[in-house]
Amino acid sequence: MAQQDISHHYSRSFNEELGAVRNHVLTMGGLVEEQLRLAILALVSGDSDLGDQVVRDDHKVNRMEVSIDEECSRIIALRQPTAGDLRLVMAVVKTITDLERVGDEAEKIGYLAARLASEERPRDSYRALQHLADLVAALLHDALDCFARMDAEEAMAVVERDEAVDAEYEALTRQGITIMMEDPRTIRRVLDTMWVGRALERIGDHAKNICEYVVYMVHGKDIRHLSRDELPFGPEAGNEAP
Amino acid sequence: MAQQDISHHYSRSFNEELGAVRNHVLTMGGLVEEQLRLAILALVSGDSDLGDQVVRDDHKVNRMEVSIDEECSRIIALRQPTAGDLRLVMAVVKTITDLERVGDEAEKIGYLAARLASEERPRDSYRALQHLADLVAALLHDALDCFARMDAEEAMAVVERDEAVDAEYEALTRQGITIMMEDPRTIRRVLDTMWVGRALERIGDHAKNICEYVVYMVHGKDIRHLSRDELPFGPEAGNEAP
Repeated sequence: MAQQDISHHYSRSFNEELGAVRNHVLTMGGLVEEQLRLAILALVSGDSDLGDQVVRDDHKVNRMEVSIDEECSRIIALRQPTAGDLRLVMAVVKTITDLERVGDEAEKIGYLAARLASEERPRDSYRALQHLADLVAALLHDALDCFARMDAEEAMAVVERDEAVDAEYEALTRQGITIMMEDPRTIRRVLDTMWVGRALERIGDHAKNICEYVVYMVHGKDIRHLSRDELPFGPEAGNEAP
Repeated sequence: MAQQDISHHYSRSFNEELGAVRNHVLTMGGLVEEQLRLAILALVSGDSDLGDQVVRDDHKVNRMEVSIDEECSRIIALRQPTAGDLRLVMAVVKTITDLERVGDEAEKIGYLAARLASEERPRDSYRALQHLADLVAALLHDALDCFARMDAEEAMAVVERDEAVDAEYEALTRQGITIMMEDPRTIRRVLDTMWVGRALERIGDHAKNICEYVVYMVHGKDIRHLSRDELPFGPEAGNEAP
């Protein structure tokens, strides 16, 4: 009985640790989302101070990554998780790497926003970039939501949506080339907006990566690098992990 | 005595497993280096077939990442490594993520090389890009070498060299802007070469990441995101890990 109590306690405390690390990932995700929101706001409103602030605050994202990383190593060393628990910890390790890089891209956008604030506004007031940013922010938010709910089916649907982001980014690049060719004096400014577009496109990629880790975590299968046809299970297959 | 034999055998086989996974990382690193070399060769020699081949072969890199990743999960689940052994496995998990992304950047360069092969050659025959590629290839090679020898001191020296890559990339971008402004008909082509430059710059970042994992693996300290002054040990400190 005493033995059972101990193991029950031990196991509850382990579950609490796993819950805590998941919550920390979501907190880090929230911070990264906010950094992205502020960076785009700085761009669209031409607020160079806000852009600088995003750059300055990136260290908070980095600090969280290091701290969660240490938390995961501690859990592996002390709790020796296996199967689904181990997959959760490994998915966390990978997810925070991607979140940290989303933070880096938001920092880049903040830097470019500060630089663009002193330039003439483009005719469309960055409407196309704002639209791309909205798509990407929704993708990131939904990826984190899938992580929170461990929803592999929804995660696979979010992965598909990254294609729309890529198409929008391609359109933005083509548009930028046309503007530069019409008026070479815009080259510097348009290039800066194209860098913002590329940063957004990469954030979409990271959101997609996070979704793929969710599928791995739930199903125990690695769907990275598989084409749609090669996927070992359809959205209707449900959770089959051991 | 029998017990000791078993544990000795067990432990030797564990060491063999760790050695094998390290070798697999180096094999993957070699493949990625070759992809980068061929992509740049395709660009400089204007060989679109070779560019296409690099794109086609990227799946080999992806397959190795998935396989080594599974190997690491298996080691953690079955061997329950702690301390230095666990740090090695975690460093491997992170290193292969970066190597896979180096592969993606090489694939991008292959794609751009194939596209650029039908365009007029620039006056300098991509000499500036070739120079940047040489710097980056040496950085990647030395990062993998540090990983192979678990040489944290050398790894820290390699990290510093990434700054030269960034400076070279900035110069390339400035030069590209000048050429585009002088002759707007070159915009498309110059942009493609700037994308190649950016891909190389990112490969430099990944090489830097790998070096940081080496330091973590050897010293047990996470030096990511620390400035030079904040580093917990100098190059003269030697290996202090427990």
